[in-house]
Amino acid sequence: MDIGKERLHSLKEEAVQGFTAYCGLEPVSLEPGRFVTRVRIRDCHLQQDGFVHAGLIATMADHTAGYASFSLVPPDRRILTVEYKINFLSPASGDYLECRSRVLKSGKTLLVTESDVYAVRGDKEALVAKALLTMAAVPQDKVPEP
Amino acid sequence: MDIGKERLHSLKEEAVQGFTAYCGLEPVSLEPGRFVTRVRIRDCHLQQDGFVHAGLIATMADHTAGYASFSLVPPDRRILTVEYKINFLSPASGDYLECRSRVLKSGKTLLVTESDVYAVRGDKEALVAKALLTMAAVPQDKVPEP
Amino acid sequence: MDIGKERLHSLKEEAVQGFTAYCGLEPVSLEPGRFVTRVRIRDCHLQQDGFVHAGLIATMADHTAGYASFSLVPPDRRILTVEYKINFLSPASGDYLECRSRVLKSGKTLLVTESDVYAVRGDKEALVAKALLTMAAVPQDKVPEP
Amino acid sequence: MDIGKERLHSLKEEAVQGFTAYCGLEPVSLEPGRFVTRVRIRDCHLQQDGFVHAGLIATMADHTAGYASFSLVPPDRRILTVEYKINFLSPASGDYLECRSRVLKSGKTLLVTESDVYAVRGDKEALVAKALLTMAAVPQDKVPEP
Repeated sequence: MDIGKERLHSLKEEAVQGFTAYCGLEPVSLEPGRFVTRVRIRDCHLQQDGFVHAGLIATMADHTAGYASFSLVPPDRRILTVEYKINFLSPASGDYLECRSRVLKSGKTLLVTESDVYAVRGDKEALVAKALLTMAAVPQDKVPEP
Repeated sequence: MDIGKERLHSLKEEAVQGFTAYCGLEPVSLEPGRFVTRVRIRDCHLQQDGFVHAGLIATMADHTAGYASFSLVPPDRRILTVEYKINFLSPASGDYLECRSRVLKSGKTLLVTESDVYAVRGDKEALVAKALLTMAAVPQDKVPEP
Repeated sequence: MDIGKERLHSLKEEAVQGFTAYCGLEPVSLEPGRFVTRVRIRDCHLQQDGFVHAGLIATMADHTAGYASFSLVPPDRRILTVEYKINFLSPASGDYLECRSRVLKSGKTLLVTESDVYAVRGDKEALVAKALLTMAAVPQDKVPEP
Repeated sequence: MDIGKERLHSLKEEAVQGFTAYCGLEPVSLEPGRFVTRVRIRDCHLQQDGFVHAGLIATMADHTAGYASFSLVPPDRRILTVEYKINFLSPASGDYLECRSRVLKSGKTLLVTESDVYAVRGDKEALVAKALLTMAAVPQDKVPEP
């Protein structure tokens, strides 16, 4: 599917709302099948040992892959996360986190994606997590009411 | 290992700080190898379709399993999440989420755990996510500085 | 969906063919949403340290969950494994392996399942692996030709 | 750790025995942290719809990542699979499967790896599965007796 510049732009804006706005997510770049986001690390993001909480890292990995998927489906489809698996490679700390997601396989109803999350301090970055995620593209009228 | 009442109590208190306090996590009950937590659902927890964001559900699944693990290791060990996998069974909405975690296998350095997350509305509950998680018990002096 | 006794019986028979016959899989019991299978451990199932190879355990976990899923979908649907995650809790050895699978959530196109694999020696059994699996129910005419 | 040519060679030979020999695994190339294997597809590898059984694909993904890990640890350590997650991207068929594994992060006791499995028919290859795996490097004297 060919996605227009306008839809790409509006998807990129829409990506930050509710929980992801609360978590401080910022969109960096969105192109078909690929999305990059960042979160500037704050005290409210940390866990008991002073590292970034795995929950925030997972939220980025999931959400960024979700909008990478949105960019490949028709506008009348919504993306829901079916499941994912994430490995934490090192405890994360630094100035900000950057998540780079891409769609590996785009089917009509299922998309398989991967996300790499980096912790950046100054000009150094370290891969802190890697996720493999399955997304469902659900027709808007099949999404239930909350 | 036999854990004293005092340590259980302090673990339960310690479980809510930083990111989990920011997310509104509340401890419900902690016993050796089992932990239950809740989050009252607020607007800041939602995603683009009005459901609870998968990131919050995953944060609960991970953190609750982490402290269930803490309750089985000596006090000089820290728990770090190695990896997990989570399936989302239904879009989540309601009054609050409840996460029930238990340790399936407790080794010296690795613990395998599972978490079930329920969405509760009034007196009805629905299983919305299930996770299978691997935790590492790391000697305190081996945990790096953030 | 109400499945007849005949279809249950033929599914149970059909479950062992090709690779699973080669691996020595035996059906034990199949009821709607639940399937139990066994493999008698032979030398050709072992890995370099004399334990049962994780690949055989995963094959059982996957296949048994697949046919537990078959029992809940209409006869014109085929089950394909979307993905799974498996934790190995202890090195496996003994007389035989037994895998118990059940469907946790049965949607129209996706089924979420779990499998527990036990190693049995004499009258003792040990849980050696646990898996969380996603299956797709694909209309027969959408399954491609091999 | 610097691994000698001799140990690389013996690891590559040792990789095929027991269940992997039974499955027809062939080593293609092993270098530190990377391993490639193949399986020529035979009838005994298929499932009910004529595709390669997911269990064989998972066995390759797991075993190939395991020996990629062996190449990075001291000779007195054994590799055991802690857990993995695998996504099946397309039903697999063709002449042979090729699995390419690499170590993403090599810690003292845990290694995080990934495996890509391709189905090859003539001069065309298709990515049919992707896995993210956690391996433990266990001192030989801590591995129990089967």
